[in-house]
Amino acid sequence: MSGSGRLIGVGVGPGDPDLLTLKAVRAMQNVAHFAKAGNASNARATVRQFLRPGVTELPLLYPITTERPATDPEYRSAIQGFFDEAATAVAAHLDAGRTVAVLSEGDPLFFGSYMHLHVRLMKRYPTDVIPGVTGMSGCWSTAGLPIVQGDDVLTVLPGTLNEAELIRRFRENDPTVVMKIGRNLSKVRRALLASDRLDKATYVERGTMDDEQLMPLAEKPDDSAPYFAIVLVAGRAWHP
Amino acid sequence: MSGSGRLIGVGVGPGDPDLLTLKAVRAMQNVAHFAKAGNASNARATVRQFLRPGVTELPLLYPITTERPATDPEYRSAIQGFFDEAATAVAAHLDAGRTVAVLSEGDPLFFGSYMHLHVRLMKRYPTDVIPGVTGMSGCWSTAGLPIVQGDDVLTVLPGTLNEAELIRRFRENDPTVVMKIGRNLSKVRRALLASDRLDKATYVERGTMDDEQLMPLAEKPDDSAPYFAIVLVAGRAWHP
Repeated sequence: MSGSGRLIGVGVGPGDPDLLTLKAVRAMQNVAHFAKAGNASNARATVRQFLRPGVTELPLLYPITTERPATDPEYRSAIQGFFDEAATAVAAHLDAGRTVAVLSEGDPLFFGSYMHLHVRLMKRYPTDVIPGVTGMSGCWSTAGLPIVQGDDVLTVLPGTLNEAELIRRFRENDPTVVMKIGRNLSKVRRALLASDRLDKATYVERGTMDDEQLMPLAEKPDDSAPYFAIVLVAGRAWHP
Repeated sequence: MSGSGRLIGVGVGPGDPDLLTLKAVRAMQNVAHFAKAGNASNARATVRQFLRPGVTELPLLYPITTERPATDPEYRSAIQGFFDEAATAVAAHLDAGRTVAVLSEGDPLFFGSYMHLHVRLMKRYPTDVIPGVTGMSGCWSTAGLPIVQGDDVLTVLPGTLNEAELIRRFRENDPTVVMKIGRNLSKVRRALLASDRLDKATYVERGTMDDEQLMPLAEKPDDSAPYFAIVLVAGRAWHP
């Protein structure tokens, strides 16, 4: 459509505002951001200092406040309706000629909600995706942990997988990043123990932020963790 | 050691200078960069415009011009000696009180040579690692390909693996990133065909750079590719 605005997926990085890219800072015009109803957007908090006065903000609030398995039909229907409505709300701005930057924690196309707007709107509007530093890069940098080298295979998996599948994956002995920890921590800990890798695991919470926490998972005294916490599991130790 | 300089691993991102982070730009003081003897450093080319006049530069030149398997004892010995010498050269600057930023393409601890300096020097000098946008994030953003969502598992593997192992990994049907393509492209292509996933594969060369190339791998007419080319293999197609 001629005269329409541009849809931009903007990765804002792992949380430290200094880890925004130059391109992301320049893209801060009208912004949309996802958050749970009642919660502030983490991505918006990261970019706060770069928002110009008078900028239009479009919060996109998830209707669902607890994580549910993606296979649950009721969840799928609710979340599908939500993304349809969010796309319609963003499209109204694009139709009015306004470029909209959709903020994404980490990288937009890596487990980011932005992708659901992208697939709905990419055929009708010009789009750009600005990659960002992922949360996992922020965590292994904070930990000073060389995660992969040489012929290593990296596995990135969500803590939402069932315990048997976690054990099967951990037994490959690849360097592994476990995302979406939250209420899955006790299960992840059991699976690491069963696959004899608990001693290689580091727990990172709010990596790169002022209040980051970092410890060997075996020394973490409880199983409470935020959804965005990450567990890093080191692979072989050989270095040239 | 009091008065010593700081060792900083700096991720410079996938190639577009606008994808440097604010923190990386500020860290451009004295810089060291890895390159093959006779070749310019890609990382240095990315940051060229941010280097201040009079900055000290320390090129670290690999003694080996072809990729060799990491299991070859002669290769291991040569590369180990090279990293020892590189660490000594960097340490001389740190001892003189100069902070040294070691440039890394993508992210320093994700298949980056910086890690070999880090493990050699981290006990003797203060260190910082500044994460960067990985080459793979640059490639899937350029391709507009949502690489992982929901309960997906991401596999990142080097094209240097043998063909049987590539086939075994591809048959998991995870979204997969194949790094270190170069002379491995014909083998990677055969393994994708054998695992019935060639039609899901996208070839990306120099992603995010002015001369980037992007095409379905099945349509690439030859098997010539630079070492840093990447193949992205999409997973399941379901989206809410």
